[in-house]
Amino acid sequence: MAELDNLKKASAHAGPLPPKGSIPNISVDNLIFGLENGSLKVLLIRHNIDGKRKPWALPGGWIHFDEDLRDAAKRILHLHTGVEGVYLEQLKTFGKVDRLPFGRVATVAYYALVSTEKCPLIANDDRPDAMWCDIHDVPNLAYDHNEILDFGLKFLRHKIRHEPIGFNLLPEKFTLLELQDLYEAILDCTLDKPNFRRKMLKMKLLESCNEKQTGVAHRAANLYRFDAEAFEKLSSQGFSFEF
Amino acid sequence: MAELDNLKKASAHAGPLPPKGSIPNISVDNLIFGLENGSLKVLLIRHNIDGKRKPWALPGGWIHFDEDLRDAAKRILHLHTGVEGVYLEQLKTFGKVDRLPFGRVATVAYYALVSTEKCPLIANDDRPDAMWCDIHDVPNLAYDHNEILDFGLKFLRHKIRHEPIGFNLLPEKFTLLELQDLYEAILDCTLDKPNFRRKMLKMKLLESCNEKQTGVAHRAANLYRFDAEAFEKLSSQGFSFEF
Repeated sequence: MAELDNLKKASAHAGPLPPKGSIPNISVDNLIFGLENGSLKVLLIRHNIDGKRKPWALPGGWIHFDEDLRDAAKRILHLHTGVEGVYLEQLKTFGKVDRLPFGRVATVAYYALVSTEKCPLIANDDRPDAMWCDIHDVPNLAYDHNEILDFGLKFLRHKIRHEPIGFNLLPEKFTLLELQDLYEAILDCTLDKPNFRRKMLKMKLLESCNEKQTGVAHRAANLYRFDAEAFEKLSSQGFSFEF
Repeated sequence: MAELDNLKKASAHAGPLPPKGSIPNISVDNLIFGLENGSLKVLLIRHNIDGKRKPWALPGGWIHFDEDLRDAAKRILHLHTGVEGVYLEQLKTFGKVDRLPFGRVATVAYYALVSTEKCPLIANDDRPDAMWCDIHDVPNLAYDHNEILDFGLKFLRHKIRHEPIGFNLLPEKFTLLELQDLYEAILDCTLDKPNFRRKMLKMKLLESCNEKQTGVAHRAANLYRFDAEAFEKLSSQGFSFEF
């Protein structure tokens, strides 16, 4: 009976148990950043419980006992939004004592940066509402989800100065202006055009395609592609984007 | 009774419950790197249970229901080794399905880089064995602790190329050779001396003290101090140590 008492105590502390087969006291949340027409967005969902709309939140949930953490994050992202094929990286675990009103749950946050175009949200009757929300228009979110978002945004902005994480969101051949638009969206600032070009080319991460844009009304710009091999080399030495 | 059944089920999956007042299914582990005479070490402990020596492990344990994650990590580090006053940063959460033989537990790993001299291990009858183990001599550790160590080591080596995380381990005034020793210990390689000096000085993170070493048998070297203000500025722009 001592064990059962212990068990009850744990449950009382932990609040409502997760569904059968899921681990109590630990969850996952997904922070999915999306780029859309030069704007940075974040993927939010809103559950409808008994006809009552809950606050907007990051798509998250409980982990099955037989499931690795990242697999749980992937499953839940698809379950709630229909989004799949996204490479999720662990961001940080948030576990403050009072982060949830109903008990003690630490959440392992995963993040990704995607092109919204390639990650359509698929609604169905079992899914909560979902939207790509502009980063400037994020409402008060459930629990500590605004804190997770703020942390993730700082992390992303720091990371993009050290790693070419945004390049995979561009077409294979892109102009320097397209690249600058991407950096400006993520960093939420205006970069000096000649300075950006000079520094970006100096890093030798871009290879000229010796081709120009076609079908544009304005003067056609040169096209570049990302040189993955050069990046590998630079990356192993440690480098950063200086602009 | 459904709730109780659920509870039992969770417990069966989770294996032995942690002590009363602690959260099931989640723990913390501390990866404490120490520098000692130009060598990189890691802090390990070995529990003695019923007179039986367990494998060496990272100092870790269960989290109290009323305790934040980092506070738990700090408490457990002190509990097992006597080490205190260390600034712990979250590294990553390890949560593979089968990482522990007795049930499903995800562990939030914290790390720090310290000078072993400033973190003496204090033995007492309630504490497990503890040692600063040279990074080249680490034995097979308990559970997935070798994996946590490998991840942390890669993380540290990446980080030290972007942030001056080792400077606080040096005396306030130090020589370039002392600085190079520190980098060589962490990166586990030999750096070219003229190259290291040239690149380090070029970054303008070091301020000359206009003083030389005293009381040395060899030719006295110039002393430098770390320029925190210059680092702040560089850091906000994103920079890296290039050597």
